[in-house]
Amino acid sequence: MEIGVKDLRICFIGDSFVNGTGDPACLGWTGRVCAAAMSQGHEVTYYNLGIRRQTSLEIARRWRDESEARLPHGCDGRIVFSFGVNDTVLENGRPRLAPLESLRYARETLRAARELRPTLMVGPPPMPDDEQNQRIASLSQHLALLCQELAIPYLDIFTPLLQIEEWREEALANDGAHPRAAGYSALAHLVQDWPAWRSWFA
Amino acid sequence: MEIGVKDLRICFIGDSFVNGTGDPACLGWTGRVCAAAMSQGHEVTYYNLGIRRQTSLEIARRWRDESEARLPHGCDGRIVFSFGVNDTVLENGRPRLAPLESLRYARETLRAARELRPTLMVGPPPMPDDEQNQRIASLSQHLALLCQELAIPYLDIFTPLLQIEEWREEALANDGAHPRAAGYSALAHLVQDWPAWRSWFA
Repeated sequence: MEIGVKDLRICFIGDSFVNGTGDPACLGWTGRVCAAAMSQGHEVTYYNLGIRRQTSLEIARRWRDESEARLPHGCDGRIVFSFGVNDTVLENGRPRLAPLESLRYARETLRAARELRPTLMVGPPPMPDDEQNQRIASLSQHLALLCQELAIPYLDIFTPLLQIEEWREEALANDGAHPRAAGYSALAHLVQDWPAWRSWFA
Repeated sequence: MEIGVKDLRICFIGDSFVNGTGDPACLGWTGRVCAAAMSQGHEVTYYNLGIRRQTSLEIARRWRDESEARLPHGCDGRIVFSFGVNDTVLENGRPRLAPLESLRYARETLRAARELRPTLMVGPPPMPDDEQNQRIASLSQHLALLCQELAIPYLDIFTPLLQIEEWREEALANDGAHPRAAGYSALAHLVQDWPAWRSWFA
């Protein structure tokens, strides 16, 4: 088992879905993909920096301080972002962030991050709300184009999770947003099958 | 199961032992105690803010920004600290922080935290190094007195972990500092049996 990657330190930065809110195992998809890497003989330090309710703007303001504190010079540090759903939540009839604002903060964050560390982006997941999902689908497509432009690998999870019943069912049975163990596990498998993630452990 | 505590948000702030470094399950003791609470019907949001190598000084500088971002006004937010081991590591023949410095930064941090949120302190664990353990034992005793003065519940884990063989054996077999699943699980049980922790879920 001593052929694994040594001492990779990964910051997962984003919202409640990164935090794993609602997961009775307290792992979320981020803990599950790191535990899977550990079980394959890799040595990973797992830093979960998901914060509930945060938009692209709030993440743009804190990602640097929090990741720099955890990824000192000389260590093999990596960053995985995932955010956007909270931008699309309506408050007083308008999204918390307009799409152009979301893309502006995402661009600012992602462009700076890739200069510092190998960076990946996982898109926003669907909600059990068809109307909000139209906004999330659109944002996910624009984030994919942005990441293509910045040469940052992007994983669309919106499209496949729409087809995974546990995701929607668990969210509805829980708090109307966050799944439980089966939903997070399904998402973890999407990430584990992603070539960009797998390449970190090649 | 709907008799549990609802929406408790807990920030665990500290060092690599808080992070759970070395645990193949990517839970550490912090994830284990939160998952146990979830399994008893409580709804917990788990924020892990452990950072490898950090001393009391580094934690004093960041705990407020990081916890305030995660515990907005109106939520039922709590803070659990655990740090001190890194202060006792020798660099150029001297501890990274002198004992009086450790206590100064711990006092500054704990006094401010208890004004904001219900706060607990878990002491530093032993290392597989008898000479360093003398410094850790002394620091743990002084932290206990400090917490008594501040009316913050303090859990001495140094003394019981010295008697738990998995802790030392796993640390030696791993990287000379951090245990694996059995060691973290043993520590999680010490915290779960602690009346101050249990009182949060009464």
